[in-house]
Amino acid sequence: MKVLVLNCGSSSIKYQLFDMPNEEVLAKGLVEKIKLPGSIITHKRNDDVKTQIVKDLKDHKDGIAIVLDLLTSEDFGSMKDIHEIKAVGHRVVHAGEAFGGSVRISDKVIEALKDCIELAPLHNPANLEGIYAATAILPHVPQVGVFDTAFHQTMPEYVFQYGIPYEIYEKYKVRRYGFHGSSHKFVSRRAAEMLNKPIENLKIITCHLGNGASIAAVKYGKSFDTSMGMTPVEGLIMGTRVGDFDLGAACFIAEKEHLTIDGLNNFVNKKCGVQGVSGVSSDMRDVESAAEESNKRAQLALDMYYYRVIKYIGAYAGAMGGVDAIVFTGGIGENDPVLREKVCEYFGFIGLKFNKEINKGLRGKDTILTESDSEVAALLICTNEELVISRDTYTIVTNNLESC
Amino acid sequence: MKVLVLNCGSSSIKYQLFDMPNEEVLAKGLVEKIKLPGSIITHKRNDDVKTQIVKDLKDHKDGIAIVLDLLTSEDFGSMKDIHEIKAVGHRVVHAGEAFGGSVRISDKVIEALKDCIELAPLHNPANLEGIYAATAILPHVPQVGVFDTAFHQTMPEYVFQYGIPYEIYEKYKVRRYGFHGSSHKFVSRRAAEMLNKPIENLKIITCHLGNGASIAAVKYGKSFDTSMGMTPVEGLIMGTRVGDFDLGAACFIAEKEHLTIDGLNNFVNKKCGVQGVSGVSSDMRDVESAAEESNKRAQLALDMYYYRVIKYIGAYAGAMGGVDAIVFTGGIGENDPVLREKVCEYFGFIGLKFNKEINKGLRGKDTILTESDSEVAALLICTNEELVISRDTYTIVTNNLESC
Repeated sequence: MKVLVLNCGSSSIKYQLFDMPNEEVLAKGLVEKIKLPGSIITHKRNDDVKTQIVKDLKDHKDGIAIVLDLLTSEDFGSMKDIHEIKAVGHRVVHAGEAFGGSVRISDKVIEALKDCIELAPLHNPANLEGIYAATAILPHVPQVGVFDTAFHQTMPEYVFQYGIPYEIYEKYKVRRYGFHGSSHKFVSRRAAEMLNKPIENLKIITCHLGNGASIAAVKYGKSFDTSMGMTPVEGLIMGTRVGDFDLGAACFIAEKEHLTIDGLNNFVNKKCGVQGVSGVSSDMRDVESAAEESNKRAQLALDMYYYRVIKYIGAYAGAMGGVDAIVFTGGIGENDPVLREKVCEYFGFIGLKFNKEINKGLRGKDTILTESDSEVAALLICTNEELVISRDTYTIVTNNLESC
Repeated sequence: MKVLVLNCGSSSIKYQLFDMPNEEVLAKGLVEKIKLPGSIITHKRNDDVKTQIVKDLKDHKDGIAIVLDLLTSEDFGSMKDIHEIKAVGHRVVHAGEAFGGSVRISDKVIEALKDCIELAPLHNPANLEGIYAATAILPHVPQVGVFDTAFHQTMPEYVFQYGIPYEIYEKYKVRRYGFHGSSHKFVSRRAAEMLNKPIENLKIITCHLGNGASIAAVKYGKSFDTSMGMTPVEGLIMGTRVGDFDLGAACFIAEKEHLTIDGLNNFVNKKCGVQGVSGVSSDMRDVESAAEESNKRAQLALDMYYYRVIKYIGAYAGAMGGVDAIVFTGGIGENDPVLREKVCEYFGFIGLKFNKEINKGLRGKDTILTESDSEVAALLICTNEELVISRDTYTIVTNNLESC
């Protein structure tokens, strides 16, 4: 059975076609610059047959239509007819407090997601656009929503609340939600599998380190805490996001630089992070290259990045009263052996015995990074958010469930 | 030799008269409502002779004059003549990057402190007013400044920098400074003394928990990190301060509630924290009473308060690659056995064996709270910031130093 997975941004669509339940990726691609002149579609089949098309696309419906054309085309396609697609899974960023799992899309679900637009004004409208477009083109195919926030809905109240007036929470639902839920869920389960232990017995800290980055405390299989908050600004230092920052200092900068609230929000989202500190780039690879050439600010950005990760791992070990495994995933977590070594060497005091040899030069391959007698395991695990979406979509549709 | 210690607020003066070097407190008191009708002076001598005077005081000079009158009065005094005072030590909140220790006040020092006014607009002007007044009344007596921020000046750059553009740091000196330095210094040294180990060998986490609250990582005797930042808003949940909070969520609230930057700053400083969450009080004792009577929001505020402390202890254990001792101090740290137990029970996984019996009902008495074979010690230590000021002042004056 074929499942189409869609991740729609405001002017882009990432897609993968899965054959389920055997989890084979038949094709994947990216549609860019939708609504702009010269939209680009980059398509790749699992046998590496590729094509790129430049064609103006006026909306997401146009985008999905061309994706379906490609998926069924003679030269580049993976199926004969679009009716082979039996379900569509959508990545949706913010489900607020509405959903603690994936759900079959219905009018009621759409209404709930509309209510969440103000919690994720950049992402949810685009995700909804994708749902509308896919529904219009494939009206008889069930659509499933898989939410970035859903996995974190198990956080206890004393963990998800902020130190703000309770009325503000009641009025606007300002609280910690967390993101990258599909990734934290996927790699925590994979870690249990690799360690050959039931996840119900494990305290796992999952570090999803990409351009956006978050860490989660996964206690006995459930999200217990995570570093991103109501918005993706909080927590780790990211490409251009400030992460944790003194509110008083933020107000001080806003006064000095004559920023409005909007201006401050833009500043902490787009002008800060690794880019702001290093002055080199928001991409860790560029920053690492610059640091190797003795760029001091680049080295400072790296040291700050590592240090923030170390503090979160320590904090979550404390929060769970211990830790059994630390997982590195995401673009940086999977491909940066230096980061993994720098971070892990701090945790000898809780019995983590890091295997430098195994880690050295290792990129993008699921691996246990610690000695066999290490009390705390460290693991590199390649995340796969699309597979989570495909799995949940398949489960809901084949079992005729409303949610899972 | 007598040393007068002054802690001046915008309308108040806390004072203590010490006999040094034997560290005896001869008298102490509080002047309140300076510049307001009905100023109040509450004075207490070390033999418990007390008095309270109500008299309009137009400025800090008036306030210090009446304190000196009391200290030399026949009925309530501790000395015959004000010339017995050989040094005055001032608590100053913010010294920016100017001073990493206590200094003898000079014109140059005053200029440096003026430069720091914008970093602590509420505190530094009042501290300077106290210095001017004391200098005017006791022109030939050396004055010493002891700074809340000084102890933390040993933080490495990758620890004190925020994820903001480096130019913003260069232009405005926006960075982590930390506060409560005298307290963190005092209790970390006292912990080493009580554990009978050289502080140069110890990794200590000091929790100064009062109405304002901060935690510090004191590595081998030096401050390595601390939870308050450029301003005292960051870090723990406090009486009315929000502590760590998602910048994106803060901007969201500001938009919704139509707050200016000033309004947002006021909100995070005065409307949040234990008061905001509980809706009961900013005073932990009131919140604990309410929680005992099953007030759910009061219980939530307590749980959140504990949890934030736990996360910081974990984070700093990670940051130092281990921890030898955890110290509880400040009004709450010294007087709240429940908090100490709730926090310490999380750290069994690093070998902390908490002695519940010793801790039970214990208030305000220096005590080791762990079993003798505990790998990590927990201690209750009563802080004494005034004594630190007196000691530093005495050291500088008797050794004719510029700083210490």
